Amino acid sequence: MIPRYSRPEMTAVWSPETKFRIWFEIEAHACDALAELGVIPKEAARTIWEKGGNATFDIARIDEIERETKHDVIAFLTHLSEIVGPDARFVHQGMTSSDVLDTCFNVQLTKAADILLADLDALLQALERRAFEHKDTVTIGRSHGIHAEPTTFGVKLAGFHAEFQRSRQRLVAAREEIATCAISGAVGTFANIEPAVEEHVAKAMDLAPEPVSTQVIPRDRHAMFFATLGVIASSIERLAIEVRHLQRTEVLEAEEYFSPGQKGSSAMPHKRNPVLTENLTGLARMVRSYALPAMENVALWHERDISHSSVERYIGPDATATLDFALARLTSVVDKLVVYPEHMQANLDKFKGLVHSQRVLLALTQAGVSREDAYRLVQRNAMKVWQEGKDFLEELLADKDVTAALGEDEIREKFDLGYHTKHVDTIFKRVFGRSA
Amino acid sequence: MIPRYSRPEMTAVWSPETKFRIWFEIEAHACDALAELGVIPKEAARTIWEKGGNATFDIARIDEIERETKHDVIAFLTHLSEIVGPDARFVHQGMTSSDVLDTCFNVQLTKAADILLADLDALLQALERRAFEHKDTVTIGRSHGIHAEPTTFGVKLAGFHAEFQRSRQRLVAAREEIATCAISGAVGTFANIEPAVEEHVAKAMDLAPEPVSTQVIPRDRHAMFFATLGVIASSIERLAIEVRHLQRTEVLEAEEYFSPGQKGSSAMPHKRNPVLTENLTGLARMVRSYALPAMENVALWHERDISHSSVERYIGPDATATLDFALARLTSVVDKLVVYPEHMQANLDKFKGLVHSQRVLLALTQAGVSREDAYRLVQRNAMKVWQEGKDFLEELLADKDVTAALGEDEIREKFDLGYHTKHVDTIFKRVFGRSA
Amino acid sequence: MIPRYSRPEMTAVWSPETKFRIWFEIEAHACDALAELGVIPKEAARTIWEKGGNATFDIARIDEIERETKHDVIAFLTHLSEIVGPDARFVHQGMTSSDVLDTCFNVQLTKAADILLADLDALLQALERRAFEHKDTVTIGRSHGIHAEPTTFGVKLAGFHAEFQRSRQRLVAAREEIATCAISGAVGTFANIEPAVEEHVAKAMDLAPEPVSTQVIPRDRHAMFFATLGVIASSIERLAIEVRHLQRTEVLEAEEYFSPGQKGSSAMPHKRNPVLTENLTGLARMVRSYALPAMENVALWHERDISHSSVERYIGPDATATLDFALARLTSVVDKLVVYPEHMQANLDKFKGLVHSQRVLLALTQAGVSREDAYRLVQRNAMKVWQEGKDFLEELLADKDVTAALGEDEIREKFDLGYHTKHVDTIFKRVFGRSA
Amino acid sequence: MIPRYSRPEMTAVWSPETKFRIWFEIEAHACDALAELGVIPKEAARTIWEKGGNATFDIARIDEIERETKHDVIAFLTHLSEIVGPDARFVHQGMTSSDVLDTCFNVQLTKAADILLADLDALLQALERRAFEHKDTVTIGRSHGIHAEPTTFGVKLAGFHAEFQRSRQRLVAAREEIATCAISGAVGTFANIEPAVEEHVAKAMDLAPEPVSTQVIPRDRHAMFFATLGVIASSIERLAIEVRHLQRTEVLEAEEYFSPGQKGSSAMPHKRNPVLTENLTGLARMVRSYALPAMENVALWHERDISHSSVERYIGPDATATLDFALARLTSVVDKLVVYPEHMQANLDKFKGLVHSQRVLLALTQAGVSREDAYRLVQRNAMKVWQEGKDFLEELLADKDVTAALGEDEIREKFDLGYHTKHVDTIFKRVFGRSA
Repeated sequence: MIPRYSRPEMTAVWSPETKFRIWFEIEAHACDALAELGVIPKEAARTIWEKGGNATFDIARIDEIERETKHDVIAFLTHLSEIVGPDARFVHQGMTSSDVLDTCFNVQLTKAADILLADLDALLQALERRAFEHKDTVTIGRSHGIHAEPTTFGVKLAGFHAEFQRSRQRLVAAREEIATCAISGAVGTFANIEPAVEEHVAKAMDLAPEPVSTQVIPRDRHAMFFATLGVIASSIERLAIEVRHLQRTEVLEAEEYFSPGQKGSSAMPHKRNPVLTENLTGLARMVRSYALPAMENVALWHERDISHSSVERYIGPDATATLDFALARLTSVVDKLVVYPEHMQANLDKFKGLVHSQRVLLALTQAGVSREDAYRLVQRNAMKVWQEGKDFLEELLADKDVTAALGEDEIREKFDLGYHTKHVDTIFKRVFGRSA
Repeated sequence: MIPRYSRPEMTAVWSPETKFRIWFEIEAHACDALAELGVIPKEAARTIWEKGGNATFDIARIDEIERETKHDVIAFLTHLSEIVGPDARFVHQGMTSSDVLDTCFNVQLTKAADILLADLDALLQALERRAFEHKDTVTIGRSHGIHAEPTTFGVKLAGFHAEFQRSRQRLVAAREEIATCAISGAVGTFANIEPAVEEHVAKAMDLAPEPVSTQVIPRDRHAMFFATLGVIASSIERLAIEVRHLQRTEVLEAEEYFSPGQKGSSAMPHKRNPVLTENLTGLARMVRSYALPAMENVALWHERDISHSSVERYIGPDATATLDFALARLTSVVDKLVVYPEHMQANLDKFKGLVHSQRVLLALTQAGVSREDAYRLVQRNAMKVWQEGKDFLEELLADKDVTAALGEDEIREKFDLGYHTKHVDTIFKRVFGRSA
Repeated sequence: MIPRYSRPEMTAVWSPETKFRIWFEIEAHACDALAELGVIPKEAARTIWEKGGNATFDIARIDEIERETKHDVIAFLTHLSEIVGPDARFVHQGMTSSDVLDTCFNVQLTKAADILLADLDALLQALERRAFEHKDTVTIGRSHGIHAEPTTFGVKLAGFHAEFQRSRQRLVAAREEIATCAISGAVGTFANIEPAVEEHVAKAMDLAPEPVSTQVIPRDRHAMFFATLGVIASSIERLAIEVRHLQRTEVLEAEEYFSPGQKGSSAMPHKRNPVLTENLTGLARMVRSYALPAMENVALWHERDISHSSVERYIGPDATATLDFALARLTSVVDKLVVYPEHMQANLDKFKGLVHSQRVLLALTQAGVSREDAYRLVQRNAMKVWQEGKDFLEELLADKDVTAALGEDEIREKFDLGYHTKHVDTIFKRVFGRSA
Repeated sequence: MIPRYSRPEMTAVWSPETKFRIWFEIEAHACDALAELGVIPKEAARTIWEKGGNATFDIARIDEIERETKHDVIAFLTHLSEIVGPDARFVHQGMTSSDVLDTCFNVQLTKAADILLADLDALLQALERRAFEHKDTVTIGRSHGIHAEPTTFGVKLAGFHAEFQRSRQRLVAAREEIATCAISGAVGTFANIEPAVEEHVAKAMDLAPEPVSTQVIPRDRHAMFFATLGVIASSIERLAIEVRHLQRTEVLEAEEYFSPGQKGSSAMPHKRNPVLTENLTGLARMVRSYALPAMENVALWHERDISHSSVERYIGPDATATLDFALARLTSVVDKLVVYPEHMQANLDKFKGLVHSQRVLLALTQAGVSREDAYRLVQRNAMKVWQEGKDFLEELLADKDVTAALGEDEIREKFDLGYHTKHVDTIFKRVFGRSA
């Protein structure tokens, strides 16, 4: 995690404090189940919760023990026995380090997923608010970066809303993928511990028992999780690039918010750089890149090897923290985006009505002009606009062959933007369940 | 698609014949809706189905027209008018090429997904059969490639079954992602066509209407689809690598089936190479790699650019055909896998009982021996096995300090493999819903 | 290889005809060396060349034999014996299939690299021509998509020339990486064949002997080769995206060539889509993606496994053919690019002189105005330009506080574009070794 | 950088201290050149070096200023003026932040490359020592994980040496790629600064001037750099996987060094896990993954956007630190690798001479036996070895049909391992330039 691109809540998920707290809970819940099964004294299970439940684990002390024992779980258990006393000997009975490590990693990932889901909710809210605000703000739709037909800025944002709704659904599914618990021993056979313990811990920690673990929880689950983050990051990139395009000097239909006091803005007022969305573009590349090592992690040898571990030390914190930061930054960009409807209109009018040429062409055909003739009529007027800067509507109205086929009102009607926005309500209802 | 790694049914999905057939259906269903709306004559819609419904489209002729018009959809429509006659002028009214192209691509992907789902079902069936066959075939479980504790070969296969069940679920979700239809015009505003047409075509073709399209169907859907294929491929790799390990000369617990007549096998009977699973390892790398350009395809500019198109011409056919081939090949490997239970047993016995050292250690502790003493006792006997090739059980029985703490029966009991397999039924019930 | 994105010369490199021809040459050169060493009769070596040297290999016949023998090299050798007669028994003595397959693959890759080098030369030539043509065509330089300072279009193209010069150098190095030959037997020990044979074949085929092969030529070489293609593709993407930006409706400083007769262009004259460079963007994604499986191919097990083979069947032809096509297409785009210097000038003037605010600020400071005051002076005039559309130069000349510090000539001089282009010659000399 | 996978020297390269020191040097050298050109007083340039040359920059103070100014370079310059005094106003004249930032990044990358080159040298030394130590240690060569023909462990290591020699060459080239300096202003035109300044700074800092920069140094250079690291990582993975295979319980031809006191090793003496090389496998995945965002960074918009920056904050430190750590760890693994020649021999003998079947087959053919008969003879004896555990040599000597064709000495000679090792000297000479 790079501090610059991490936020406190997500950083906390990956802190040693959180990790040891989760380890404790796994062990303590397991003790409850072991006590219930009669493997350890019920009294001991109670003591463990009482003494450890509110204890502050001393990270420095655990590190000190680990330097000696070269084993993180043993170091923790040793420290726990310092806190809990003799009953600590009942902790971890029949369990394997991976039972604790893998279940903890999944708990951390579900916590991370919950933060990301909240991030998505905030983003969806911002997109919805701005979409309704600009539901009727007419703007030119572009294909290939070239003017195509009018749409509204609200429809554009509605499209992103629909995309991030899908992101949310995917993340819910991805969270479910990794919300599992394994307490199954050295090769997953439950030789030294009853399946009931796993079931109890799973339930207590709001996880599902892993159907078959092999010391480790299978890594196809994590591959799917990180691949999903990569897809969400790609959607962030799409919106980021849209903003960057809109902020281009020549387009200037919207801008990232720039605080009045922000230095350098006034002497070169045109020089407001979309640095936030550029940054998001880069962050998206990173989150996406983590999908690959996650997929390579799947093919562990036999019941497990430990090659996945180093990878996860990077991508566990980095992918979630970066995506969290990116979603929050994007929400802020959307929330405060400065929109210039008048520039949108000006761009739309750049070619003086040419954007309606298609409709005129169609109208001529429907009025009985042959396709070839209609094309020729539109073309000769279009070229005057294109080459001489004339106004398309005026040219058409002055063209006898055109007016012979179409009345003035009819021609004017073809320049009505309402034609293009008549289904905006339908689209909004699809996306938001409401159009107002 | 490389013929060597493609199968006919999947190849057919990507054939021009299939594509044009789907194009026709989209257009013809749209005509039905347009007729219902009164935009075109009902008679025309009927004629289109009657003349085009069973027509064979002449690929060479369409190619010829395309060479002239440089536009694939126009070429098709021109050819269609040669088949349908004058009523063809009612086809494609108010539609955009992308309406046809994107909806068709999604139909092809859903067809591909259906084939892959059937592949997964076959694989699951093979895994289930072999898992039950070897439910009680004891074998050594390995972590880090090193002997750990016993398990059964059936449990190993059950783990893969659970993994491919997850693959199936993911693929069902991925299929749903791309089962959408868009008929919304140049920038997705339905300016020239009613949303009702999209709804009708969607329903008729078993798709969902795309909530917001922007001339194109948003590519986050496809990114998710191809990322999912990449994860499934990674699971294939895990099983392939397991087989490759088992077939190693020194391990030889299982082998890919080798037909009796297969050349070269008898003069060098040890030289049976796991070429199928090696091949699967490579194919998995390819399918995985396609996830990345699919994710880079998401951030199209504004309402669309066409940079995704070339990518999809590669990965659409290649990813689905390769995965289809790989799943079928894997199913065949599993189905015919030659398993050597006696080699499994021999490998398990390689260190003459040492695999049980952990249980003996625990028993000594539970019998009141201090942890340090117990460790020392186990260690001195273990080293005789390791260094001098002695038998662990015999050594323990001959060690007075050990027998002072544990009775002979108790010691022998620690060497019982049943201890490790007692929960196999539980695991099978979890995976298959039955243990017999 | 997708026909649509492949060119004949590269396709030929990957044809069965080429492959078998290379196989023959490897075998025949090896026979020469074996004859020289006295292992086989010199007469036989001569016969093999005489009969096979100009023979046309019958692909269908070889396929037929392969279907029977399930072995491609044996099938070829059998067919060769049909052509050469009894002396064919001296072919392939002491050799392994991989000796032929791996050396052939490297020959194909070097041939492919040679085509790509020629492609790069053509691209460099086009870039050089256009760079000199527009050496002095002033245009606005942009950072973050926002106007920054003036530069020339020639300088922009010179930058791309420098980048593709680097591409060329990298490709030369990459070609050298894979220009090796291995004829070293089953595990690379030369047990059955003298190293002299490898040395002879290498020399005859313009390759270097592989220092240590292990049945196969080590795949780090190929990883480096394909990674290099991925980097070159990324440079293609940069130029493609530059063109796409320049062609945006609002920018329109350059356009892909659009033939006068190209349909649809006149009725919507603004609707000329940069489809070639969009296509290049997608192709770049594909070529880049192939670097990853190539890297995963490196870690073959022990002396070799065959997991790399399927990967190479895809990426060998696909990466080289796609890059060849992309380079040729890019060259054509550059060659015919329609440049609009007047639009460049208009865009540069969009903010009526504001682009020179930085120079004015500096001049005021150098004239003794405090930094704060200078900033305030520039700012108040800049804001009039920005908000009211005034002309920056006129405002400055009308501002008493400004003219108190700077003379009119001095102020006017700050608006001289020559200031920005004075080192264009230096840059051109660096890149092209000449400035005219 | 994850502390666990980073080493101090590399960490220092990426520390704020190092960064600010490099910034200072760039600025101070630029002042020298500016003084030489008469732009600033020579006295000032001297003072800057005198006061700043040995100064300790106060990171906390710089951070404090940056929080205020929101600009890292300005914060540094402000702090520098606190150290240098009034002459500091001559620093950075005509320069752009990117001039400092990009040149500094390249200096850091060259420093990182130098450390990596030293790492590679150490690894090469270790490989050479162990290769000569085991030059004649016979071991079975394996293809597909299956026994093929004998080789020596020294030859295996020589192959890795050759591979890491190539890694070294590639890294030298990659270092050259990014050893450039740009001081060219806002869009690279040298409008505000003479090219001579860039040339001076480049020379002083042992860099080459960037032929054409565009505010930034072109990112194809960095893409090539990180792609090269990815290829080197893949070679690390190959050696790591080799060790993991050799350490498998059933193979046990070599082991990572395990210190005598290392806990847990004696009670389960077989349970020594190749955790270092498993770890290296994971680290290789990470380094490889960074190549992709580096390639995506190439296509910056126009003269630059800042999307690359966030990516480089991750991969600059992470890729170099991880690779440094991995190379050092690998060197240690190679250095201390515990090799078991007797296990190698035992594995080689596993199929009692069968490994020589190929040579016997050939000898029979050369002795005039028809191919079919020779095959049958070898086969019937081979099957007795395979199925009944007989000794291949004894069986052959007892087979009248065999001895009719070949004398006993001749048969015995076919079992001579020297046959396979006779060219080891040649291979060593190729790799090391010496065979002893």
